[in-house]
Amino acid sequence: MTPKLDEQAHGVYIISATPFTDDGALDLESADSLTDFYLEQGVSGMTILGMMGEAPKLTEDESLQFMRRVLARVNGRVPVVVGVSHASHQHVQRLSHTAMELGAAGVMLAPVANLKTDDQISQYYLSVAEKLGADVPLCLQDFPQSTGVHTSVAVILRLIEALPQLVMLKHEDLPGLRKLTQVRKQSVARDLRRISILVGNGGLFLPQEMRRGADGAMTGFAYPEMLVQVCALFEAGKPEEAENLFDIYLPLLRHEFQFGIGLALRKETLRRRGIIRSAAVRQPGPLLDGDDMRELGELIARLEMKLQQSTR
Amino acid sequence: MTPKLDEQAHGVYIISATPFTDDGALDLESADSLTDFYLEQGVSGMTILGMMGEAPKLTEDESLQFMRRVLARVNGRVPVVVGVSHASHQHVQRLSHTAMELGAAGVMLAPVANLKTDDQISQYYLSVAEKLGADVPLCLQDFPQSTGVHTSVAVILRLIEALPQLVMLKHEDLPGLRKLTQVRKQSVARDLRRISILVGNGGLFLPQEMRRGADGAMTGFAYPEMLVQVCALFEAGKPEEAENLFDIYLPLLRHEFQFGIGLALRKETLRRRGIIRSAAVRQPGPLLDGDDMRELGELIARLEMKLQQSTR
Amino acid sequence: MTPKLDEQAHGVYIISATPFTDDGALDLESADSLTDFYLEQGVSGMTILGMMGEAPKLTEDESLQFMRRVLARVNGRVPVVVGVSHASHQHVQRLSHTAMELGAAGVMLAPVANLKTDDQISQYYLSVAEKLGADVPLCLQDFPQSTGVHTSVAVILRLIEALPQLVMLKHEDLPGLRKLTQVRKQSVARDLRRISILVGNGGLFLPQEMRRGADGAMTGFAYPEMLVQVCALFEAGKPEEAENLFDIYLPLLRHEFQFGIGLALRKETLRRRGIIRSAAVRQPGPLLDGDDMRELGELIARLEMKLQQSTR
Amino acid sequence: MTPKLDEQAHGVYIISATPFTDDGALDLESADSLTDFYLEQGVSGMTILGMMGEAPKLTEDESLQFMRRVLARVNGRVPVVVGVSHASHQHVQRLSHTAMELGAAGVMLAPVANLKTDDQISQYYLSVAEKLGADVPLCLQDFPQSTGVHTSVAVILRLIEALPQLVMLKHEDLPGLRKLTQVRKQSVARDLRRISILVGNGGLFLPQEMRRGADGAMTGFAYPEMLVQVCALFEAGKPEEAENLFDIYLPLLRHEFQFGIGLALRKETLRRRGIIRSAAVRQPGPLLDGDDMRELGELIARLEMKLQQSTR
Repeated sequence: MTPKLDEQAHGVYIISATPFTDDGALDLESADSLTDFYLEQGVSGMTILGMMGEAPKLTEDESLQFMRRVLARVNGRVPVVVGVSHASHQHVQRLSHTAMELGAAGVMLAPVANLKTDDQISQYYLSVAEKLGADVPLCLQDFPQSTGVHTSVAVILRLIEALPQLVMLKHEDLPGLRKLTQVRKQSVARDLRRISILVGNGGLFLPQEMRRGADGAMTGFAYPEMLVQVCALFEAGKPEEAENLFDIYLPLLRHEFQFGIGLALRKETLRRRGIIRSAAVRQPGPLLDGDDMRELGELIARLEMKLQQSTR
Repeated sequence: MTPKLDEQAHGVYIISATPFTDDGALDLESADSLTDFYLEQGVSGMTILGMMGEAPKLTEDESLQFMRRVLARVNGRVPVVVGVSHASHQHVQRLSHTAMELGAAGVMLAPVANLKTDDQISQYYLSVAEKLGADVPLCLQDFPQSTGVHTSVAVILRLIEALPQLVMLKHEDLPGLRKLTQVRKQSVARDLRRISILVGNGGLFLPQEMRRGADGAMTGFAYPEMLVQVCALFEAGKPEEAENLFDIYLPLLRHEFQFGIGLALRKETLRRRGIIRSAAVRQPGPLLDGDDMRELGELIARLEMKLQQSTR
Repeated sequence: MTPKLDEQAHGVYIISATPFTDDGALDLESADSLTDFYLEQGVSGMTILGMMGEAPKLTEDESLQFMRRVLARVNGRVPVVVGVSHASHQHVQRLSHTAMELGAAGVMLAPVANLKTDDQISQYYLSVAEKLGADVPLCLQDFPQSTGVHTSVAVILRLIEALPQLVMLKHEDLPGLRKLTQVRKQSVARDLRRISILVGNGGLFLPQEMRRGADGAMTGFAYPEMLVQVCALFEAGKPEEAENLFDIYLPLLRHEFQFGIGLALRKETLRRRGIIRSAAVRQPGPLLDGDDMRELGELIARLEMKLQQSTR
Repeated sequence: MTPKLDEQAHGVYIISATPFTDDGALDLESADSLTDFYLEQGVSGMTILGMMGEAPKLTEDESLQFMRRVLARVNGRVPVVVGVSHASHQHVQRLSHTAMELGAAGVMLAPVANLKTDDQISQYYLSVAEKLGADVPLCLQDFPQSTGVHTSVAVILRLIEALPQLVMLKHEDLPGLRKLTQVRKQSVARDLRRISILVGNGGLFLPQEMRRGADGAMTGFAYPEMLVQVCALFEAGKPEEAENLFDIYLPLLRHEFQFGIGLALRKETLRRRGIIRSAAVRQPGPLLDGDDMRELGELIARLEMKLQQSTR
């Protein structure tokens, strides 16, 4: 019996890649090894079928297969959040109910494009939530760089108030540091529930965000062990140690942060680490050339050298 | 045996709405009556599963059902073009092959979002075309207001040259009159094939576009009989009569042209004309309120009055 | 002593073009003849230095010269609104105070780009208004197609409440019919001041907007006499006559409505009517070619023919 | 006699902030101290009146005053590039000629918004260059995140070929690593001039860009000494040392990289370093609150600590 996602969620909810074979078919064996890897690194949860999981490029059947496979492999050890963003309310509903029946802990929802005003955005979430019902825990994905939708602090607070099932904010507005602080401070000022806030954007501002009240990260950096340790050190009251560790990985993290090609770099890094069999990205999508490969190799070599130095 | 789409296509390829019941289920009986209506109005072809057909809001199974139903109902009397735009090449390929096997005459393809430069856009079409093979006739949909992708005249010409299967341009850049002229003139200057150009944007500039070398319209205005007559009058060398007829419908056409709510107005008009049973649009989508309904009624009444005056 | 702009403003506030000579210099003599023409057509007011007045392409000195010239020519006969939108608050302030000192009736302000949420947009107007002081009457320009800023009904109402000097809304969201109705209905429901609403977008939806509670038009269609008569007929309780007249001009109005090239078409039409000496648009800007010129001529000829028919 | 900008430009062309007093007036004394500081740090050149120099918020007179002051202070010791981007060709021309007369080494030009296709973008530069004449050295600013204009490699090469005065590319597309490589490789393949490429984006990818063929940086990071040393180490054939130094500053550099608020952080850092008297940013613009100030302080303290550690 999987526990449901709630406001106490913290640590690292890794955004899982979706592995393909070199010819672009779903690679379920790599899904297993990838899941095992994430769990071994000590993630607190997993998020599948997000944008970086190439969800819009899967067929409905592939989505279902992947969801089943990961949920079975995780087998309740950590909560799994399933991305359900879709152009149609009916689809969001269908995907959400399927996910919950298969054992997901909650669903993550980004708004459809073309929502502009505060009212349009809150109305979107309110109408979807009504369709889903109160027993499907929701993570609101705030990622304007990709969706084009700018969810204000006022809207987030309004939704926290209106929707008890809204238990988590995936925070990846950019720049977004002040926004995070405002959600925290104004929640207190208005005596609202304190929801879980996990940060995205590859973790580029993770230490600053943890200091401002984040509970952890929901992102897919190819070295989840760093994210896990940084979050743990923050929880242990050792922010300076956390930040020192973070800084060692920052050059590579910044490299993977690049929008678009970042996904190919991430998959290639996972492949080089022996975790998935192929770095294939579904087309149309970024492809690495010789220069990209060499550059990635240099950055990985520099990381390994610095890690050795730091442990001496 | 359905003939394939080719460069001689002209007249009206009506963009078909996708009818739903009031509770949002696919309404296949209305699909039949709608298809019958379009054919009775004398359209030269049909286009299904485009953006105005709410294709992104259908499940894969619903798309297939609708495609089958319409193709069966048309039964080869006119060519049917199927929209296959999708985030993934694999999906485009799968949808296209299914469509062609079921009797489609060709497929319509808009580019994925985020393509910016001339090279990126031509590369997109070249790579998809390679996957589809040369025997799937292609209609290039140039609709930057919706896709955010700006396909230049240079790219269109390059693709005409490289892809013999590219037989049609759905022209709906806005403003786009000069672009249409440039495609025509530069095709001649460079001795390229003359492809079919059908215009969209609800037909808002249809007479000007016909004068500039369009072969007809591919749009979904709820009075296809006007579009058919206007195109026929142009073909018959009676542009002034064509434009006089067009002008009578222009106030309503301009009203339906409104991005977003236009789809709801179009479906409601078709419903009032007794052609489909429900005007339902899948959520999230535009809903008409009392003011919208009254206003639409007034515009329809004015149209009917003017039509009567004109035939006296 | 010029009266200030207030909530009773109605009729046509014509958006004035800024005439240049063929080599791109400011043409102040044409500014005079254009001003005379507008006044002769019976406009209720004028708006200068808006986006369609190519304000961002003028030097500071040119703006000042043009402002002085038009205000002197108008000489208090109708209120003149001056566009003061600018990247910097200091500039808005300087422009506004200069305009008011020279005899403007009020200023029109569009938001800077990059404002996204309701709070950001209202904060923008509140902070500018504080700088300007309560005695500078404000017209809020709501033109998201150009600014990228989406001002919600909630924000408009909040600003009506907070800023007594906000007396006018230039409404040109698109589609925007429902928004107009909502501003009117919710103002009543919340017992707020009824401000003046003048509509833009070339007047493309003017009759529908008048029926929904607009007070007139603020746009620059090259046949202001039609706009004036349509508004007058609506005020006289003759909406059907108004709409009949509007429909005669609609084909040309729709043509001029085209974003970008529309400005060149408008200036060329004014030039053909003998009102300004040159149709020059400052570069980079749209240029008409032979096809555009012929097409415009055909549409004007059709208009004149229909006007003759209607008066027989 | 100031030498003109040419293709051999390399090292750091610092993007100068424009200092204001606390009440928003131009602070010319701080302009002097800032100029002195940049020169003391060993920059190879300076760029003034760019976007990060708040150029669009200056009056024409302020721009002129600032330009004069900096050029006089520099007094020919290093080349100064002046930003001349403007909505109107006439303005670009006027600004450029003024700058060159006052002793600038060249001008930097970003395209106007709304250019979409390859042809539109090259046509923009070709028409401006014709107005400026061949003796005004040009730096093409490729900054799509801000302009919305995507200048392809093909366009850059076409312009290198057509315009001998195009001597520099300010490269700040993001992600843009491959683009830089392509400009370099295709220039060689097509036997074109090798122009200077300086990179922007705060220097976030400076080491990778230097390895891919950049000649230096044109950005405004508040620690120009790092940028200067990194470029010098690359030129001295010590890429690993360069990257080690870069990594020490990366956490702060990444922080300042944040779009929008980054400018306020940069000015505040310069103020804390005693280089300018006020960190004021013209309104509307980013303001730092207590949390932002504390966070910046922590990051600066961490930098100083790491610098001490590294030199032990």
